[in-house]
Amino acid sequence: MKRVLLTGAAGTLGTAMRKALAGWAEELVLSDIVTIETLNAGESFIACDLADLNAVVDLVRGCDAIIHLGGQSIEGTFENIMNGNLKGTYHIYEAARQVGVKRIVFASSNHLTGFHSREERLNDKSPMRPDSLYGVSKGFGELVAQYYFDKFAIESALIRIGSCLPKPTNRRLLSTWISERDLADLVKRVFIINRLGCTVIYGASNNPCSWWDNSHASFIGWYPKDSSAVFEEEVFRNDPLLSPDDPVLLYQGGAFATTGHFEDV
Amino acid sequence: MKRVLLTGAAGTLGTAMRKALAGWAEELVLSDIVTIETLNAGESFIACDLADLNAVVDLVRGCDAIIHLGGQSIEGTFENIMNGNLKGTYHIYEAARQVGVKRIVFASSNHLTGFHSREERLNDKSPMRPDSLYGVSKGFGELVAQYYFDKFAIESALIRIGSCLPKPTNRRLLSTWISERDLADLVKRVFIINRLGCTVIYGASNNPCSWWDNSHASFIGWYPKDSSAVFEEEVFRNDPLLSPDDPVLLYQGGAFATTGHFEDV
Amino acid sequence: MKRVLLTGAAGTLGTAMRKALAGWAEELVLSDIVTIETLNAGESFIACDLADLNAVVDLVRGCDAIIHLGGQSIEGTFENIMNGNLKGTYHIYEAARQVGVKRIVFASSNHLTGFHSREERLNDKSPMRPDSLYGVSKGFGELVAQYYFDKFAIESALIRIGSCLPKPTNRRLLSTWISERDLADLVKRVFIINRLGCTVIYGASNNPCSWWDNSHASFIGWYPKDSSAVFEEEVFRNDPLLSPDDPVLLYQGGAFATTGHFEDV
Amino acid sequence: MKRVLLTGAAGTLGTAMRKALAGWAEELVLSDIVTIETLNAGESFIACDLADLNAVVDLVRGCDAIIHLGGQSIEGTFENIMNGNLKGTYHIYEAARQVGVKRIVFASSNHLTGFHSREERLNDKSPMRPDSLYGVSKGFGELVAQYYFDKFAIESALIRIGSCLPKPTNRRLLSTWISERDLADLVKRVFIINRLGCTVIYGASNNPCSWWDNSHASFIGWYPKDSSAVFEEEVFRNDPLLSPDDPVLLYQGGAFATTGHFEDV
Amino acid sequence: MKRVLLTGAAGTLGTAMRKALAGWAEELVLSDIVTIETLNAGESFIACDLADLNAVVDLVRGCDAIIHLGGQSIEGTFENIMNGNLKGTYHIYEAARQVGVKRIVFASSNHLTGFHSREERLNDKSPMRPDSLYGVSKGFGELVAQYYFDKFAIESALIRIGSCLPKPTNRRLLSTWISERDLADLVKRVFIINRLGCTVIYGASNNPCSWWDNSHASFIGWYPKDSSAVFEEEVFRNDPLLSPDDPVLLYQGGAFATTGHFEDV
Amino acid sequence: MKRVLLTGAAGTLGTAMRKALAGWAEELVLSDIVTIETLNAGESFIACDLADLNAVVDLVRGCDAIIHLGGQSIEGTFENIMNGNLKGTYHIYEAARQVGVKRIVFASSNHLTGFHSREERLNDKSPMRPDSLYGVSKGFGELVAQYYFDKFAIESALIRIGSCLPKPTNRRLLSTWISERDLADLVKRVFIINRLGCTVIYGASNNPCSWWDNSHASFIGWYPKDSSAVFEEEVFRNDPLLSPDDPVLLYQGGAFATTGHFEDV
Repeated sequence: MKRVLLTGAAGTLGTAMRKALAGWAEELVLSDIVTIETLNAGESFIACDLADLNAVVDLVRGCDAIIHLGGQSIEGTFENIMNGNLKGTYHIYEAARQVGVKRIVFASSNHLTGFHSREERLNDKSPMRPDSLYGVSKGFGELVAQYYFDKFAIESALIRIGSCLPKPTNRRLLSTWISERDLADLVKRVFIINRLGCTVIYGASNNPCSWWDNSHASFIGWYPKDSSAVFEEEVFRNDPLLSPDDPVLLYQGGAFATTGHFEDV
Repeated sequence: MKRVLLTGAAGTLGTAMRKALAGWAEELVLSDIVTIETLNAGESFIACDLADLNAVVDLVRGCDAIIHLGGQSIEGTFENIMNGNLKGTYHIYEAARQVGVKRIVFASSNHLTGFHSREERLNDKSPMRPDSLYGVSKGFGELVAQYYFDKFAIESALIRIGSCLPKPTNRRLLSTWISERDLADLVKRVFIINRLGCTVIYGASNNPCSWWDNSHASFIGWYPKDSSAVFEEEVFRNDPLLSPDDPVLLYQGGAFATTGHFEDV
Repeated sequence: MKRVLLTGAAGTLGTAMRKALAGWAEELVLSDIVTIETLNAGESFIACDLADLNAVVDLVRGCDAIIHLGGQSIEGTFENIMNGNLKGTYHIYEAARQVGVKRIVFASSNHLTGFHSREERLNDKSPMRPDSLYGVSKGFGELVAQYYFDKFAIESALIRIGSCLPKPTNRRLLSTWISERDLADLVKRVFIINRLGCTVIYGASNNPCSWWDNSHASFIGWYPKDSSAVFEEEVFRNDPLLSPDDPVLLYQGGAFATTGHFEDV
Repeated sequence: MKRVLLTGAAGTLGTAMRKALAGWAEELVLSDIVTIETLNAGESFIACDLADLNAVVDLVRGCDAIIHLGGQSIEGTFENIMNGNLKGTYHIYEAARQVGVKRIVFASSNHLTGFHSREERLNDKSPMRPDSLYGVSKGFGELVAQYYFDKFAIESALIRIGSCLPKPTNRRLLSTWISERDLADLVKRVFIINRLGCTVIYGASNNPCSWWDNSHASFIGWYPKDSSAVFEEEVFRNDPLLSPDDPVLLYQGGAFATTGHFEDV
Repeated sequence: MKRVLLTGAAGTLGTAMRKALAGWAEELVLSDIVTIETLNAGESFIACDLADLNAVVDLVRGCDAIIHLGGQSIEGTFENIMNGNLKGTYHIYEAARQVGVKRIVFASSNHLTGFHSREERLNDKSPMRPDSLYGVSKGFGELVAQYYFDKFAIESALIRIGSCLPKPTNRRLLSTWISERDLADLVKRVFIINRLGCTVIYGASNNPCSWWDNSHASFIGWYPKDSSAVFEEEVFRNDPLLSPDDPVLLYQGGAFATTGHFEDV
Repeated sequence: MKRVLLTGAAGTLGTAMRKALAGWAEELVLSDIVTIETLNAGESFIACDLADLNAVVDLVRGCDAIIHLGGQSIEGTFENIMNGNLKGTYHIYEAARQVGVKRIVFASSNHLTGFHSREERLNDKSPMRPDSLYGVSKGFGELVAQYYFDKFAIESALIRIGSCLPKPTNRRLLSTWISERDLADLVKRVFIINRLGCTVIYGASNNPCSWWDNSHASFIGWYPKDSSAVFEEEVFRNDPLLSPDDPVLLYQGGAFATTGHFEDV
């Protein structure tokens, strides 16, 4: 890879990906609305408000590929969601079209399907059932990606990221956890293959108590190497069982599905 | 019905629905960003910009039901789409939640699935493949509706309207046509039944060359009474055959799928 | 038809079928645990407790066909369900095997799938989700029928009867109603065709707000002639709308699904 | 239609189609290996052995469309099947490619799926299970058609014809019958629409005891107008019931499925 | 686990589970109609006839969990099946409801689906096709479990046990074998997770020639550790090939599917 | 195995299989239209033109099993395809019927489904979409096999071979590669099990970027031991990325799908 853009680079996920992708591209262009002070070798930084199309076009120019983690990454006000995730994702794709970038990793989220029951096994055909405005905005992003693929042949990996953390620390995370290594491997894989299409991939490690089926995406050739299995004993000990009727257990989205409207809080 | 809100009442579809729904509700509250001068008995008018949440909350207050046709109804700039269809639809649902309206008809569109081939038969499980930013915005609206149903129990009929016109005047319309009577019947049916859920319904008359399967929604009990069959001969005569390879024939969305990006035009 | 056995002949459904099937068979052998005093031409009566295998074998002997409506037809104590529906149905099939009857109509029930939501469309592949011990016992009967088909080639029509009544008198019945004529037509059809197999058929008239799909059974060639459509206006007027959240509306089984355990009552 | 080629024109089906299609095209070019002596207005005749590619190319030249009924239409020796149906159908498609004909009606057969059980409902996705070498050859023809569509954009209607007869005269025919009018309507419909693709259609009238589901082909807009229902009573009277275990009843292909290898007879 | 009830503890499977579960619960309450003389540390014994509801309620009282292996475990007279498996399983669930036990392991059986062909791959949606009255009774048990889940929120693992033996000793067992360790792991897993629902799980080890797909139950997080692969060579040597047409090979249930009615033997 | 026939033994695949199957059968009868001069222990050779039925009957006589690799193995003239693959495969099955061979391995090909997109995951239910006349002929062979199974109980493994080579040397082969060891294991497995049916199996090793799903055939118990994963790095280095729009990347068949008609070349 020559020059790769990483949006949302100042966030937790962005920071993890900076580390995990170190040395992969000749230049990793970091971007965020927040300034990143300390740069490593091979990194550069461009501050950018994703709600500003012209700024995004400038940002994208000269990049071979985009890893779009930017925007609001948890529930927020509609104003925040709209600026970061609706405008933001539209601007990324529209800039890619204008500038000629042909392949994008879009950080979608399991919260796009968070209102499915925990006893369901989801794949790329499962109906979208967002558990939050945040989840709705990720669905919008996937539709924008699909539209730019069908009309303008821009390919996307729509990674419905579970929970990218150093390790799973509670029972829900045993199902949703993805190691930083597995996610970075997936990002790299996306750019080493001939055809990507516009493909949904659930971003989870090889966890025993899995909710998600990626077999439709086997052509990509990515397989997670880590597993939550090694953390099960510790988690079972520390996170006590709840009643199966506890609302927080009903849906895959967990607390996102039980929390009321953000603006009421 | 006591007091029903009809948004987008000044548009073509809104005007047709005013006529077709005459006498159905005690009060039909018309709303649009454009002023409607001439009111019929049982109609009132409130001007409203759907991009203004407070105005929408005021608009919705006191209504039993909402028929949401408002917003941008063809492809437009992202600015227009965002104000009319992203903000607009979100505001309708959020206002309904705040005010307590429990059932909404949302005018979705066949352009949400316009990149499916004309040889495919779609139902409510078919992947969304929007043919335009307009189509993307209708998908956003459906996701908002699904979210407000799963979390706040607001029910919706997501009517993916084909083409509501006096009669089908070309070959594509033979598949997509819905008569004004059939659409009005569907709207009324939505409010006469006990349970609606959040249900996708393709809005088409009983056309022979149909692309869409509504059998999943049979519990609603709506069946179209009109058919494009009686217009076939006339259309076949007036609208000459194209080569099957003509791009405009490939996709259900027709010219929406072949037109480039709006902002380029 | 020469000699046909009708069990449960003294019940409401049995009485309706006696009338609707009059003249169809040379001899219609009525049976019930309750004595039927008045017989019409072509009818005979044999009292029988279905919980007694020997009595059932005697009953079945000499019959060409069995229409098995007998047993408990609503929720009851496990004792009643066991005697009437578990023992009873097993005895009917075992007697048929011993005596050589090769085709049986089994009155199954929509309460075998009563815990499905009213927004679902069911067919023969839908999981059994009984709403009562009564519903469980109908599932047992279907399994017995399937077993006697797979091992002993006894064919069955497993009619999941909705509500066989003179007319639908409330909103739920608009979906579940089957006219006596339609049900009698189905029973007759079962015996006029070459192959029946062991086939689930939802017993409902051609109702607009249908929950059930019989297309898998189209080879039988039965189509209902009646429809609840003509009763809709009257029902909508007399049966007021409930809140969509009312528990009694959630499931197809209606009050069967919300009532607690029979023995507690 | 200007100039349409009808192969197999001297056969029973060909003769029926000549009558039913009279006046439809400016010129109906009849072809067969057997000479047709009497021509009607608008008809011409060219003798042709379908096993001879050059002859077929000459035959096809100048035609707008092909209705390919030719070849062996019942079980035969492999020699006959190979010449008439393997070579024959390949030659038709290859000639169409060389000459530039873009749309073909191919008379496929229900015997391509004749080893499916009579209790199964088939559609275009059902596995091919031929009941005869004849059935195998129809599958070959469909694969040739699919190949010429995918690579050379020649469109086909693959009509799996049931039994095209003046009326159904036995019980099996109640399921498989297609009236000459319905078949001719379908043939005409194929050429009046913009897009055909390469589409399987079961050729049967609107029969109550149907085995086949054409809903995938609804975009074509063809609906049969006739039904075997009006003949049921007569057939039930004249064609006595067999035991459900009779091998001839097990499979849709009837006697084709129970007859041994042709060459042994 | 505090106090766990194990029914059918004197049987072969019960004895294996006693050993495999040793030390897992503070108290393992063994029950059977046959007295168990020798108890290990942490075990107690209560004799119980499952056909006696009051006795079962007493048995269940004070237990946190139930592992229900009791009843008839092979084909038997209807009398035996009824007492052990129909009454027995109903009594276990009804006692659980009365006493407040919320999670049950039910030993269902592969003989519930024993009339499926050996070339079919089954999952939780596969139709029930019992190969015996025993199989029918397991279906009844699953329906009771489903009913008590839907109405009373009692969760169940419906383990369709293949063949729990020290090792597979014939060819059929290569497909159906489950090691005692794998089954015990599954039982323990059921009680360590937050949500179980009412879930079918095929009880088989990780066998190469598998007939069953448990991917729908991946949320449980159980994976078998053993495999019949290591026994293949020995079995292939000792169990000679039969003709593929041998009836005993046709169905998954093996000899259960070919044996006639028990009462005739 | 006693006496096994290997057709196409002089070809590349045949040569590889000779080596990989050495010592497996008491006698491996090699056959080809080309003479094989050097025979190993346990091998014999019979020259045979598959287009000659009598010769094929003689060839097959006395064999227990057939591994049919013979015929045209790449695109060719229709004449060649017809003689080698249409006549040839028909003759093999017809000879097997006449002589009494009951189980056949048929070397089908991934080019039977070569017009599916590379983003699709295929299984045995996927529609046949041949990318060449060669692919069409493999579909013909599968239909012949299905017919001889349904009517004459001759079992077949229809192995849709990817690319059997020492190692994968380009990007497409990373998906389609099958090692000689894996293919030989599959061939042997076919003859060691009791039931084979007529089963499609995609012949590929355990490759990460797989297009094919063999889970329907798990009852056979074959699992590939090799994987293209170990060759990925080398291939990625040596085979440069193409534009995702390059026609040769669109379809699984690769260049077979983009090459025009053979006879034109």
